[in-house]
Amino acid sequence: MTIAYDGTAYAGFQSQPNSPSIQTTIEKALSILLREKISIIGASRTDAGVHALGQVAHFTAPHLPLLYSLNALLPPDIRILTIEEVPPTFHARYSALRKTYYYHLALHPDPFRRNISLNLKMKLDLNRLKTGAAYFLGTHDFTSFSNKAGRGCAKNKPIKTLYRLDLIEEGDRIRLEFEADGFLYKMVRNIVGTLLEVARGALSPHTIPKILQEKSRRLAGPTAPPHPLFLIKVDYE
Amino acid sequence: MTIAYDGTAYAGFQSQPNSPSIQTTIEKALSILLREKISIIGASRTDAGVHALGQVAHFTAPHLPLLYSLNALLPPDIRILTIEEVPPTFHARYSALRKTYYYHLALHPDPFRRNISLNLKMKLDLNRLKTGAAYFLGTHDFTSFSNKAGRGCAKNKPIKTLYRLDLIEEGDRIRLEFEADGFLYKMVRNIVGTLLEVARGALSPHTIPKILQEKSRRLAGPTAPPHPLFLIKVDYE
Repeated sequence: MTIAYDGTAYAGFQSQPNSPSIQTTIEKALSILLREKISIIGASRTDAGVHALGQVAHFTAPHLPLLYSLNALLPPDIRILTIEEVPPTFHARYSALRKTYYYHLALHPDPFRRNISLNLKMKLDLNRLKTGAAYFLGTHDFTSFSNKAGRGCAKNKPIKTLYRLDLIEEGDRIRLEFEADGFLYKMVRNIVGTLLEVARGALSPHTIPKILQEKSRRLAGPTAPPHPLFLIKVDYE
Repeated sequence: MTIAYDGTAYAGFQSQPNSPSIQTTIEKALSILLREKISIIGASRTDAGVHALGQVAHFTAPHLPLLYSLNALLPPDIRILTIEEVPPTFHARYSALRKTYYYHLALHPDPFRRNISLNLKMKLDLNRLKTGAAYFLGTHDFTSFSNKAGRGCAKNKPIKTLYRLDLIEEGDRIRLEFEADGFLYKMVRNIVGTLLEVARGALSPHTIPKILQEKSRRLAGPTAPPHPLFLIKVDYE
């Protein structure tokens, strides 16, 4: 199934003790509908506050539930967009070939985008940002842009290929579009945090290759906040 | 000043006992900033859950407060967009010549628009809706489309001129745009509720002139919900 959600009220996609997660909310609805305990596996473990327009998850069930009935059991901040049968070899996470994330920046505060966009308090040099962004393209060891994952998270191979990092300007909004064969824990937010340091003049764009080579968080910028980040889509064969 | 707000968390623009309103929230910030008790008067008393992109309010103060400082004292769901000095004859409500409201409909549920758009559960006949909408244009007594205002609200003259009622389709979203010299209490929501009855086939579009002539809520459709309604702008001389 493909899923859209406003992550504002959730502790992230993955089940957490004592906090509502997207996963447990959907599992509860599916279990009521199918009258047996259902577990789902998501393509991406989006963090607390991160949103999705095209998360993918799979599960094993006696039959395909009706989309309409499933949405009726879910809160309005989680919507199942499509649901379909897949071969037993399909795995939402391991079969994924490519993922796309967007990160939203705003030049002016907007009360309707406060939970989905980062309001920039300073003027940014977008040419510096573009110069910096170009250094991330291609295949790199992204260890310098990855936080240590929490307990129970599988270790991810640190070498990833970033196919696309585009800066799209629309009026007073800026969107950073990331497309890669995979992302490390907090990788997008760490790249954005570093590019914002570059754009405000605190870091030279040309130090990025050196930061990548260091394989350490030490030289990279801070982790940008989660609420402007959207998982847009997951591609499969 | 012009004001944008997400009305989701508020009991409406106007001060209410025991509930947070847009007005009291702004008055509190202004009073802190200007070190004296400030009262503001808004152009439009938007209801609980109704939003604004261009509400206008005026107040009397010893000097013009800084926009930046005022926004720093306000919650992120209320933003002052502009602030300027006006002649003492200016009155946000009485000097208003024209107001524009938008009402947002959506053909598919969207978790990011759940507080700002009405999700249509049935298919609508938009041609019927357009036929019905045309009957509202011009100068009419809109009593049939007005709820009785609450205690303390001034009685409004029931004859209004509707300059524009446009239906704009954008992908799976529909926007109804209203422009008039003034609106009665819940008038937009009552017109929308009636047009939705027309669009789903429950009411003939050609009964609208009769409903207007009746000067009674009896024949009109129900009041549509407040959360898809936006005060877009208020025009002055």
